[in-house]
Amino acid sequence: MVAIDFHWDLGSTNTYFALHLLKPIAARHGVDIVAHPFNLGYVFRTNSYVLAEEPRAKLRHRGVDLRRWAKRYELPFRMPDVFPIKTSRALRGALAMREFGREWPFIEAIFRAYWELNDASIADDVGLRRVASELDVDPDRFEALAESEPIRTQLEAETNAAIERGVFGAPTMFVGNEMFWGKDRMDFLEAELERSLAATGADRPLA
Amino acid sequence: MVAIDFHWDLGSTNTYFALHLLKPIAARHGVDIVAHPFNLGYVFRTNSYVLAEEPRAKLRHRGVDLRRWAKRYELPFRMPDVFPIKTSRALRGALAMREFGREWPFIEAIFRAYWELNDASIADDVGLRRVASELDVDPDRFEALAESEPIRTQLEAETNAAIERGVFGAPTMFVGNEMFWGKDRMDFLEAELERSLAATGADRPLA
Repeated sequence: MVAIDFHWDLGSTNTYFALHLLKPIAARHGVDIVAHPFNLGYVFRTNSYVLAEEPRAKLRHRGVDLRRWAKRYELPFRMPDVFPIKTSRALRGALAMREFGREWPFIEAIFRAYWELNDASIADDVGLRRVASELDVDPDRFEALAESEPIRTQLEAETNAAIERGVFGAPTMFVGNEMFWGKDRMDFLEAELERSLAATGADRPLA
Repeated sequence: MVAIDFHWDLGSTNTYFALHLLKPIAARHGVDIVAHPFNLGYVFRTNSYVLAEEPRAKLRHRGVDLRRWAKRYELPFRMPDVFPIKTSRALRGALAMREFGREWPFIEAIFRAYWELNDASIADDVGLRRVASELDVDPDRFEALAESEPIRTQLEAETNAAIERGVFGAPTMFVGNEMFWGKDRMDFLEAELERSLAATGADRPLA
């Protein structure tokens, strides 16, 4: 089955854009986006990378670039006042929501809260419980699962699996074994998707 | 006059791609590419940036990405065996060639030599003198000018001007005051070019 593996962390600005850019691509080709939360902060620490230590001119240009992408794709993006945030709790929340069958709407809700609505409470229980309620999941059961040992272990496993697969930043997508890094490689990803679908014959009716 | 300012260094892999991607864009809109050589190594040192110190996974993916771009745009790119190289001599050569009226063919020739033909001698007098001959410029006069004090000063001035303008990497392009960084922002650059041309009325016959 051809699918898009999507390694994401709520704390990654460019992942907000990737989330929105991937959806129409997946829809066009009738493939699933398989979400893999991972701890980007841990990966950065492993690589001794600190975004805020980038050259000032580069950080300034980063802001310009983000505003251009928001404008081009008509996304109500705004840089949150509180940044960066600790995202482990939200990442575990997504893994818990997988078991409640609400993983994808949860991911969309937390990205909207943080990257559109400037709501940094989404990193904490307050925000996460609110999203659970909105998705008709009992906040107590949700929180208990999200903070349980198996889910903690699962997030560590997802993070280590991502690192082993070659992930060093976010967003990172895979189609089969082909890795794509960044919001700006969607055309390459879509070309690989087309190749893969053609190779498996899944595209045959359209070919 | 709307134009594309192109800040380049021979040592920048992504600038090889930008060189080839910019030409059809400039041709489509009938605008000039104004070349600005600058010392990227100096900018990197100023920012304490060392490419080779990037995480191994990131460097590996960089190679994958470069090969994808070469394939997509059908460019005979190959990573040179000797990399990085000192490029100041070649950069000064370009400034000298400007005075001989051969700046652009010189830039194309040195990028081809290094990034297609694996010829690291292009960093030295041997390679640069050969290119001069090929462009019907007397190698002795070329070398004397390229190594002259005014040209040395000019390269420093170009580098400092680039830094003051916000340049932190290569390739960097400007359309007016709008800065674009990377081989992967050509669609944004072209959109800005179209806006600028429309604003000055230069596009009117086509509008």
